[in-house]
Amino acid sequence: MSQIITKLDDLFQARREEIEEWLHKKRTKKPPFFYSSVDLRHSGVRIAPVDTNLFPAGFNNLSPAARDRSINLMHDRLEAMKPVPKKILIIPENHTRNLAYIENLFVLSGLISETGREVRIGSLTATEPLSLQSMNENTVMEFPLIRTNNRISTSDGFEPDLIILNNDCTAGAPEILIGIKQPIEPSYHMGWYTRRKSEHFRAYTQITREFAEKFNFDPWLISAGFHRCGVVNFHERVGIECVALGVEKVLHTMRQKYEEYGVTEKPYVFVKADSGTYGMGIMTVGSSDELLELNKKTRNKMNTIKEGTQNTEVIIQEGIPTIDVVEGAPAEAMVYLVDGVPVGGAYRINSERDANSNLNAAGMRFVGMCDESECAESAREKIKIPGCNFNVFGLVSTLAALAAANEVYDSLDIGFSI
Amino acid sequence: MSQIITKLDDLFQARREEIEEWLHKKRTKKPPFFYSSVDLRHSGVRIAPVDTNLFPAGFNNLSPAARDRSINLMHDRLEAMKPVPKKILIIPENHTRNLAYIENLFVLSGLISETGREVRIGSLTATEPLSLQSMNENTVMEFPLIRTNNRISTSDGFEPDLIILNNDCTAGAPEILIGIKQPIEPSYHMGWYTRRKSEHFRAYTQITREFAEKFNFDPWLISAGFHRCGVVNFHERVGIECVALGVEKVLHTMRQKYEEYGVTEKPYVFVKADSGTYGMGIMTVGSSDELLELNKKTRNKMNTIKEGTQNTEVIIQEGIPTIDVVEGAPAEAMVYLVDGVPVGGAYRINSERDANSNLNAAGMRFVGMCDESECAESAREKIKIPGCNFNVFGLVSTLAALAAANEVYDSLDIGFSI
Repeated sequence: MSQIITKLDDLFQARREEIEEWLHKKRTKKPPFFYSSVDLRHSGVRIAPVDTNLFPAGFNNLSPAARDRSINLMHDRLEAMKPVPKKILIIPENHTRNLAYIENLFVLSGLISETGREVRIGSLTATEPLSLQSMNENTVMEFPLIRTNNRISTSDGFEPDLIILNNDCTAGAPEILIGIKQPIEPSYHMGWYTRRKSEHFRAYTQITREFAEKFNFDPWLISAGFHRCGVVNFHERVGIECVALGVEKVLHTMRQKYEEYGVTEKPYVFVKADSGTYGMGIMTVGSSDELLELNKKTRNKMNTIKEGTQNTEVIIQEGIPTIDVVEGAPAEAMVYLVDGVPVGGAYRINSERDANSNLNAAGMRFVGMCDESECAESAREKIKIPGCNFNVFGLVSTLAALAAANEVYDSLDIGFSI
Repeated sequence: MSQIITKLDDLFQARREEIEEWLHKKRTKKPPFFYSSVDLRHSGVRIAPVDTNLFPAGFNNLSPAARDRSINLMHDRLEAMKPVPKKILIIPENHTRNLAYIENLFVLSGLISETGREVRIGSLTATEPLSLQSMNENTVMEFPLIRTNNRISTSDGFEPDLIILNNDCTAGAPEILIGIKQPIEPSYHMGWYTRRKSEHFRAYTQITREFAEKFNFDPWLISAGFHRCGVVNFHERVGIECVALGVEKVLHTMRQKYEEYGVTEKPYVFVKADSGTYGMGIMTVGSSDELLELNKKTRNKMNTIKEGTQNTEVIIQEGIPTIDVVEGAPAEAMVYLVDGVPVGGAYRINSERDANSNLNAAGMRFVGMCDESECAESAREKIKIPGCNFNVFGLVSTLAALAAANEVYDSLDIGFSI
């Protein structure tokens, strides 16, 4: 096990009850979202979330044990709602040709069905029912949506009590959902048209600092430092000098920390859109000069993110090289959570990239992860992922899910009266 | 005195030392910016900041006593710097024809001179020295800037130790300043190209909540509640439904609070750009229907803010009608702070508007405010501003200045180690 995994696993074993209690308190104070997935980067010295998705796909990558845990947690969450929803509509991304995404929908709807509910899958774009084949040749039906008196139903007459959103709303709140009476989880307000990475990592830094103070370690070990820039247009070359300066600032801090921890690698950063991306518009930068010398092709790429939204604000985040290798390729762990509790995960691997790269790019694929019940020495042997430790991955991911619950709040959310 | 002024004045008189200590502690933890001005709205039941400017103009509106306090606080702040700056360059807005702004520059440079320093005024756009006449026929010289080896000087050979920025950088960081060696206060990073009102009010809500809990009153009495929306384009009618929903949400909360406090007026909200404006792009809305019925002219107006920046994100803020009347016109107090300490203020009055309106619009003018030494019964009589209470205005504004110091932080600002 790596230095940081050992350290956190020791902490977890020694003070498990205290940790669980601390996390439970936080969950009670500000309930986590229905589900989420957290991308982790692990360098041996540190492990940190680098992206937290509130409309996760990839449930099909979860192990049987992880699926069981998901069902139980979904069940408890749904039963705690008032009134308890019996009929559930999933509203997915408009990816009718992405076979892996269809597989995710098949599994996700199956998990919710297993909680004892009726489930239907809607579609924001379909004009007639669609029968879609998944990667593993399962069939998924998607139904057009109908809005009547501020309630949504599907074209086959299904009237849900609750909508589970599995669409990250990069282009804005889906018009048909705005102001409807049925509850939506997570709300489209958490879509990427409002969310910002900088607000997520601000909240993460805050919670991590608290946690690390309580349990007495350096929060840098579980965080990727970041700096937020203002408006940038790479295409027009506006604001690039300011990003270059931010890059220097982040690299400077990294050098100090690397010296403190005896890390000999060359520090580098990721420059990415402050609003969500689909793995596009992410740049790896080792010095500010690289930024100033950007060629036109790269500048255009940085300006294009999912569905053509213009890339106008960026954050600079410490790059954490991944030491995890699965099937001979660089890999990064993704942890899935339901109701803020880790249920399992998968490794994203990409043989076309190296240990410093963003792996969420062309060439990626997923393999299952060891999880709590599968992390016995024998299982770990079997899947050959030496660094895999679900206690530690789960702990760091839980902090990220708690941060997500705290990241966007306005005064109405936190309430005024004392 | 109004209900809220009486309440807070009583609190201030009774627990002044405790309050000062609490504020001092906060100032020490996160130093406030060099200067700021805070726009307040006061309805009788409540008083709240609605805008906090980190590059304030209007120093010419301050009373002699307020100017003296400014000099003392600027002096102490500058003397505490290492090394102590002796030569100071002010970098102003590019408003060479705004006679009131030139008057502000004349006064501001005079205040800094009085701290015993040499002062020069630069210009981001001038290509030769400009001699400008102010409103009161004072002469102000502005000099072109020259950058050599990452240091700035003026065309007449003045090499400053410190730059005081008096330009709110709506259009971005001034290129000539990026990465220079001399310190800049406040940093261009606090320009409106990065700042967001929602982050300011998030920080304000947080600090106000703490303060009100400590001193046992409802923080709503000193806050204007808000809600942040995602990307909106009024011109293209994108996202307006979502704003309408936010308006309903804010109005709903207001109705509850109005009932609690027996306020019988009809609640209304301001819809404004989340990035700074120059009093443009602000809308008064009493119901979400008004938003949906916006005509084309208003939509275009909402999309145009200072220097043509596109209006893409909005906040919805509780409207606080002003009960203050000066010279027969609706008025709102503005408080000036140096180093986070209130020094004085002015009233913005606008006889072309009513008590519900945004007064920062065509027709506005300024009159001096009573301040600490001028708030004796006699002075108050003289300037006929019955609600004026500098203790209370100063207290609320200090909380806003402290919020500004906390509003933009990334992980590098707050540091990682414990």
